[in-house]
Amino acid sequence: MGKTRAYAVSKGKLTRATLETAVKLRGTPGTIIWVDIEDPTKKELQFLQTKFKFHPLAVEDAGNTRQRCKVEEYGDFVFIVLRVFQKERCDATQLNFFLDGNLLVTVHFKCVEAVEEVARELEKNPALLERGPDFLAYQMIDLAVDDMFPHLDEVEDQIDKFEDRMLKATSPDEIRCTLGQLFALKKRNLTIRKIVWPMRDVLTVLTHRDYKFVRPENAVYFRDVYDHMLRITDMTEMNREVLSASMEAYLAVISNNLNLAMKKLAAIAAIFAVPMLISSIYGMNFHFMPELEDVYGFYIAIGAMILAVSLTFLFFRTNKWI
Amino acid sequence: MGKTRAYAVSKGKLTRATLETAVKLRGTPGTIIWVDIEDPTKKELQFLQTKFKFHPLAVEDAGNTRQRCKVEEYGDFVFIVLRVFQKERCDATQLNFFLDGNLLVTVHFKCVEAVEEVARELEKNPALLERGPDFLAYQMIDLAVDDMFPHLDEVEDQIDKFEDRMLKATSPDEIRCTLGQLFALKKRNLTIRKIVWPMRDVLTVLTHRDYKFVRPENAVYFRDVYDHMLRITDMTEMNREVLSASMEAYLAVISNNLNLAMKKLAAIAAIFAVPMLISSIYGMNFHFMPELEDVYGFYIAIGAMILAVSLTFLFFRTNKWI
Amino acid sequence: MGKTRAYAVSKGKLTRATLETAVKLRGTPGTIIWVDIEDPTKKELQFLQTKFKFHPLAVEDAGNTRQRCKVEEYGDFVFIVLRVFQKERCDATQLNFFLDGNLLVTVHFKCVEAVEEVARELEKNPALLERGPDFLAYQMIDLAVDDMFPHLDEVEDQIDKFEDRMLKATSPDEIRCTLGQLFALKKRNLTIRKIVWPMRDVLTVLTHRDYKFVRPENAVYFRDVYDHMLRITDMTEMNREVLSASMEAYLAVISNNLNLAMKKLAAIAAIFAVPMLISSIYGMNFHFMPELEDVYGFYIAIGAMILAVSLTFLFFRTNKWI
Amino acid sequence: MGKTRAYAVSKGKLTRATLETAVKLRGTPGTIIWVDIEDPTKKELQFLQTKFKFHPLAVEDAGNTRQRCKVEEYGDFVFIVLRVFQKERCDATQLNFFLDGNLLVTVHFKCVEAVEEVARELEKNPALLERGPDFLAYQMIDLAVDDMFPHLDEVEDQIDKFEDRMLKATSPDEIRCTLGQLFALKKRNLTIRKIVWPMRDVLTVLTHRDYKFVRPENAVYFRDVYDHMLRITDMTEMNREVLSASMEAYLAVISNNLNLAMKKLAAIAAIFAVPMLISSIYGMNFHFMPELEDVYGFYIAIGAMILAVSLTFLFFRTNKWI
Amino acid sequence: MGKTRAYAVSKGKLTRATLETAVKLRGTPGTIIWVDIEDPTKKELQFLQTKFKFHPLAVEDAGNTRQRCKVEEYGDFVFIVLRVFQKERCDATQLNFFLDGNLLVTVHFKCVEAVEEVARELEKNPALLERGPDFLAYQMIDLAVDDMFPHLDEVEDQIDKFEDRMLKATSPDEIRCTLGQLFALKKRNLTIRKIVWPMRDVLTVLTHRDYKFVRPENAVYFRDVYDHMLRITDMTEMNREVLSASMEAYLAVISNNLNLAMKKLAAIAAIFAVPMLISSIYGMNFHFMPELEDVYGFYIAIGAMILAVSLTFLFFRTNKWI
Repeated sequence: MGKTRAYAVSKGKLTRATLETAVKLRGTPGTIIWVDIEDPTKKELQFLQTKFKFHPLAVEDAGNTRQRCKVEEYGDFVFIVLRVFQKERCDATQLNFFLDGNLLVTVHFKCVEAVEEVARELEKNPALLERGPDFLAYQMIDLAVDDMFPHLDEVEDQIDKFEDRMLKATSPDEIRCTLGQLFALKKRNLTIRKIVWPMRDVLTVLTHRDYKFVRPENAVYFRDVYDHMLRITDMTEMNREVLSASMEAYLAVISNNLNLAMKKLAAIAAIFAVPMLISSIYGMNFHFMPELEDVYGFYIAIGAMILAVSLTFLFFRTNKWI
Repeated sequence: MGKTRAYAVSKGKLTRATLETAVKLRGTPGTIIWVDIEDPTKKELQFLQTKFKFHPLAVEDAGNTRQRCKVEEYGDFVFIVLRVFQKERCDATQLNFFLDGNLLVTVHFKCVEAVEEVARELEKNPALLERGPDFLAYQMIDLAVDDMFPHLDEVEDQIDKFEDRMLKATSPDEIRCTLGQLFALKKRNLTIRKIVWPMRDVLTVLTHRDYKFVRPENAVYFRDVYDHMLRITDMTEMNREVLSASMEAYLAVISNNLNLAMKKLAAIAAIFAVPMLISSIYGMNFHFMPELEDVYGFYIAIGAMILAVSLTFLFFRTNKWI
Repeated sequence: MGKTRAYAVSKGKLTRATLETAVKLRGTPGTIIWVDIEDPTKKELQFLQTKFKFHPLAVEDAGNTRQRCKVEEYGDFVFIVLRVFQKERCDATQLNFFLDGNLLVTVHFKCVEAVEEVARELEKNPALLERGPDFLAYQMIDLAVDDMFPHLDEVEDQIDKFEDRMLKATSPDEIRCTLGQLFALKKRNLTIRKIVWPMRDVLTVLTHRDYKFVRPENAVYFRDVYDHMLRITDMTEMNREVLSASMEAYLAVISNNLNLAMKKLAAIAAIFAVPMLISSIYGMNFHFMPELEDVYGFYIAIGAMILAVSLTFLFFRTNKWI
Repeated sequence: MGKTRAYAVSKGKLTRATLETAVKLRGTPGTIIWVDIEDPTKKELQFLQTKFKFHPLAVEDAGNTRQRCKVEEYGDFVFIVLRVFQKERCDATQLNFFLDGNLLVTVHFKCVEAVEEVARELEKNPALLERGPDFLAYQMIDLAVDDMFPHLDEVEDQIDKFEDRMLKATSPDEIRCTLGQLFALKKRNLTIRKIVWPMRDVLTVLTHRDYKFVRPENAVYFRDVYDHMLRITDMTEMNREVLSASMEAYLAVISNNLNLAMKKLAAIAAIFAVPMLISSIYGMNFHFMPELEDVYGFYIAIGAMILAVSLTFLFFRTNKWI
Repeated sequence: MGKTRAYAVSKGKLTRATLETAVKLRGTPGTIIWVDIEDPTKKELQFLQTKFKFHPLAVEDAGNTRQRCKVEEYGDFVFIVLRVFQKERCDATQLNFFLDGNLLVTVHFKCVEAVEEVARELEKNPALLERGPDFLAYQMIDLAVDDMFPHLDEVEDQIDKFEDRMLKATSPDEIRCTLGQLFALKKRNLTIRKIVWPMRDVLTVLTHRDYKFVRPENAVYFRDVYDHMLRITDMTEMNREVLSASMEAYLAVISNNLNLAMKKLAAIAAIFAVPMLISSIYGMNFHFMPELEDVYGFYIAIGAMILAVSLTFLFFRTNKWI
């Protein structure tokens, strides 16, 4: 059996329970139960189906880590699958909720920070569970959603830093490195979007449809998480557009750098062309080339070369090629 | 306590109040109250929750500057979050409204010009408040929305100027500078869009849903702001498309400039290639090169060079490479 | 007072009226009135509000040239804002309609051809007004919409011409010019789209919602304009896609031209490299270079050069670089 | 009068009629009539309005070849405008239907193959018309839609062929030609989409709305054409995406070719640079250059040149520049 | 007759049947029948229409391999067309279902693995068919959908591998090869999307609409397949965006490589330009060039050349051109 814990609250008193006692307590009026199963064994999943009477399909989905975010209403309970963002690996882990009027069962394979925090909170303040299992679920979802903000801020910061560097980078190696970073940022943002959008759909459903297991006084809290979710999707969309614009602009910067190099090359070629031709002409072996015997011929030739170089140089300066 | 002010109007008479007196006056029939809290302290936020009986979530949102624009209906009041564009920093600041039949509470962290203007107006003309707290809210939103037009016009002007310069810029440094500006314009427009779209959603909701705290005779005013908002979103979309087209066209311009430089380089190389070869040939040290002893040999060689240069030059002119 | 005219029709008889008489005639059963105000003065706008009893917001919008297209229903009249395309300036001018069961008031700042034409028509055939003020409004909208077709055809023609030239243009100056035209076409199409889309929204509303001031027998006419509008938006979308594809293709053409120039340059460099090296070698001043004394040395060297040039030339021809 | 024909079926007997007799037969119970007008004269259009009592707007639209696809319900008949794809000119021609319970009038300016085929079919099997005028209309639409498949298959085939060639093409002329074809394919696909999308809208309406003139037992046939239409729009969308991806990839191929040429040019320049410098050095006229008198000097210099060329060549081979 | 098999289950007993006996058994209460027809002959299709009384249009569609995915409700049965992904050919084959309360007829042209597996399952466990023909259909669809995951994982793996290689590839041949692969991946993903989207539409319809032939207890299973489908479409969309970003980034990498080559070429040209000019100058044949007689002239010239080369080399190193 993996790490499993169960809490029951009745008249403000919190007791820890096992899976078996949780099943027994379930019917007791005024008792609210939370069962958390980390890394479930096959036996535990079986237990959920046979003792808690959850639908086989829901239990199967809870035991399969490749589910998409969703809310499914089965006659006597609601089954919610969320994918919770995990900072360290820039990936998502699945968190499943089985929710009815007095019971919340959470199933997950990895340790989820939001669940741990709610558990700590609950041990301090048992009244929390008396607000309903739906309120507990809200708290976990809220923590999971709010956990994403620092990560998104980090992406935004990196984009901002990138922009500063973008217009300055000139060396091909720098460019290669910047391109790699830009692409990594793009992929990171895409990964977040992939996690965030289905989650938003789930929260839309939880907010806009009436579920009998969401108490009227708690509905407003789900609306609140939904707003945070909207803000997160806004941020990812904004990041996406900025990254797109950056890539476009960066391509233009690279093209322009190439342009610059090209024109410098053209300038170098042109600047040396005339003196080379002059010196080459005076290197011809014709017997009758009057200037050759001239005492100042050499100096005149050198002067002509300097003049040619200066003129072409000036020409390029005026045309801003150099 | 931050900068707080409260106004109460009863039978056309305006009196300034404190938070405490505002609470007391609240129930009085025929009295309409506006409370404005700038940079709220924790105590003031607490006060809103305990004395004005606003929902804890709404008060928490009002005290958190990272909210998204939204309208939330709580049983006995409407809570509106707007992000008001601030010209100087090209950013938005949050403006929160708590609105019920006789009371408007505005909460904001920065000084908001639209709020100041309505306060000045109100002191001149107390009857303004008698049209309802919803009308006061309308006035602030209207001013905040209309404040964006000059800014958008400025963006449009800059885009127009940019277009003129775009097809002319040839120097790589100019291009680099133009690219930077283009990218900055793009980001600026994106920032405005990011502020504008959720605001539009809020106004859609305010216009199309019936809220009991929006008086029927005032509904038409909210529809009017909504139309201005539509115009603003139209402008940002148009700007976006023009900027996209500009970027594309500019990339083509840069490529073409490269093309031009390339062809000039090719031309220079080709023009000098033939005379260089001729002079190089006559620089060979073979003992038997009949032309070398020719009296006019040198002049003939020079002539051949000039001819070659002229012919290649003419060729490139005809093909428009130079 | 600007240029103002008013027409009243009663039992098939058309009489010209002033603003004041129009107000008086308004209540008379069986009398239908059209008032057209060009370049309204403040007094006239005031008059619309005080005497014609139009809502202040509607009148304010009519006097503000920056309105977006819209249809607004006020209890006792419908207010329509259209932006009518003006060929000469490739821009739109605002045309406002106040419409109730027996009265049509049109307000505009510039002379609108569609309004003039309806006025001419009306003077010839007073029965036109008896079909209702909504029919008159329909006629103006229809004329305004149909006026756009020749303009759109012109854009399409220019795009077609552009395509022919696109794949042929090779000189950088031609390319620059073509790029400028392409960009201008894009902007022109964008401007039309900007005018056309909100107008389409207005016509959707006029067609699909039941307005008490649109007579059942005239509804079919509004549906007809709506279809024309759909065709116009289709055309602008099509133009947009073609222009996008053109820009992409044109960028490829430019790149390819660069490619071509590049390869020619490489060919020239390579063709001249070998003879240059040969002549340079025989220009060395070593004392012991047997071939130098050879009688045919010079001719052999020249022959080697010609051979090298021919071979490289042939090589490039086969590889299609020249 | 253009080419006009009319068919009437009563109790399984087919008779050919004229426009005039068709009008007379219209009321007879159990008689179903089809009138086909090709290239209508003004008189015929007039006839439709005055004798068949079709709404003037519908008749006007039928006589105007620039209509958009649409379905319009007039109290006592349905008016359908379709644009039928014409293979030869890769364009669409307009086909108008006036449909009521016992009558189908088709109006078109060009000869439409689908209409001809239905006419031939009808003459063989008069029972066809007894299934209702709506079934006849279905048959024409079905034939018109199915006619597009071979054309679309051809476009797909061309795209496939293009892909094979794309990665191979290297000569600038081939590239230019391939670019032209790619652009032509794009435009062809756009043209088809332009025809297909409004047609799809029409079929959506015909399938999903209940028209009293579409018999219940025939509704399933319209749903069938609608599915074919969906398949066609899927194909055009797929083509569009593949063409877009092709264009992008092709641009990359061109860039890469340029890269290749560039590196070869750099290699040629670098390979010849060293021997040129060596020979140039030994061409200097200094009096004291000891090697010049060396018997093997020349051979050593030549050897140095060959060595330099070999080394640079090897260097480029290793770096895969040649 | 192609490969045809029929199963009938009554009171837990499975019997194999022929087409003819299946028709006879159809009416028997408590008997559920599955008929599977692979590669149907015309006779068999005829049989479905005449004996099973399926609508001619549905049978025609089942016999035509170019159908689009769809669900069609005919009064007394539901007709479903799916396109099942075939791994080997990266293509889809059509699978048709005729479903009523007690009968499932599957028609397909190629061997479909999902059908085979369900047949094997059924022979082991006849109770499977007693859960209803809709459950059998669900099982086939579920298997067909789940079969796509390994394929999509493979595409994702290839994309990941590609990314690693992308930023490293430098040789033009490698680039050409990588471009080819990238384009192939894009097309593969497009093909999957083309199969997946219409299938998703079908599952949306099957999940959200109430069909009398889908038993209430089985509806939840269809919702489950639908979720898998959503996950698949999510994956293809994600792949699409990553591939798009990759293509963009790759173009930038290629441009940058060109840049690199360009700058190296410029550097080589510039490094050799100065020593060439020096040696050329001292190769001039002027009679009065004092340095020529200088004993150390040659060494000074060589030294100047080395100095020039070193300086330019250092300059380029500092500017990171080499």
